Amino acid sequence: MRGLVLVAHGSRREASNDEVRAIAAALAEQADRRFEHVGFAFLEILAPTIGDGIEAALRAGASEVVVLPYFLSAGRHVAEDIPAAVVRTRRSHPDARIRIAPHLGRAPGLTETLLDLADSSSDPL
Amino acid sequence: MRGLVLVAHGSRREASNDEVRAIAAALAEQADRRFEHVGFAFLEILAPTIGDGIEAALRAGASEVVVLPYFLSAGRHVAEDIPAAVVRTRRSHPDARIRIAPHLGRAPGLTETLLDLADSSSDPL
Repeated sequence: MRGLVLVAHGSRREASNDEVRAIAAALAEQADRRFEHVGFAFLEILAPTIGDGIEAALRAGASEVVVLPYFLSAGRHVAEDIPAAVVRTRRSHPDARIRIAPHLGRAPGLTETLLDLADSSSDPL
Repeated sequence: MRGLVLVAHGSRREASNDEVRAIAAALAEQADRRFEHVGFAFLEILAPTIGDGIEAALRAGASEVVVLPYFLSAGRHVAEDIPAAVVRTRRSHPDARIRIAPHLGRAPGLTETLLDLADSSSDPL
């Protein structure tokens, strides 16, 4: 079975972290059979760490874990920090298949999502 | 006709700004008749400013401009800074219809976009 871990930066503003938790909950609801386990993790500032998130998926029985960077741009966090955290975690779980998806800013569906957002639900100021 | 202005934070890392420009170019290509003009702007660090972006849309003939915050969370930038910039710009263009869309983190299609990204194109580390 497959697990998904949404990885956000983490914020000192708790409402921003709540937005991440809400997105992860929505993913869990919509994942159906694509991912039997959906969790979340934060790169900095607060727990669960990326290692915590991956290990929760493994404990839930995942044989493959996809780490999904919830980031808009491919800066150092996406290019270096997240892969480094995954490598560290994998040392303790050599048999687990752990993959890193492209970051959100690279999602093929992103432009259509943005156009729908702009088109359907713009609020008057 | 309608104009769309994608508003990102702006980064000191030029490659991140290039990612925003690329998303705006993809939006322009896919907008068809939904938005005849698509531009971009940065809240901080570099030009074009939000005012510049709105005025470019107006000069191109837009009678309505949708400002779309390319942000994942609803922090101060989304709640205060972007609306303040729009209000300032509107003082010089009282007849223009300028709307602010919800920020990307609120897009109804976001979870499906994330699941597709995780499902289809995860790279082995």
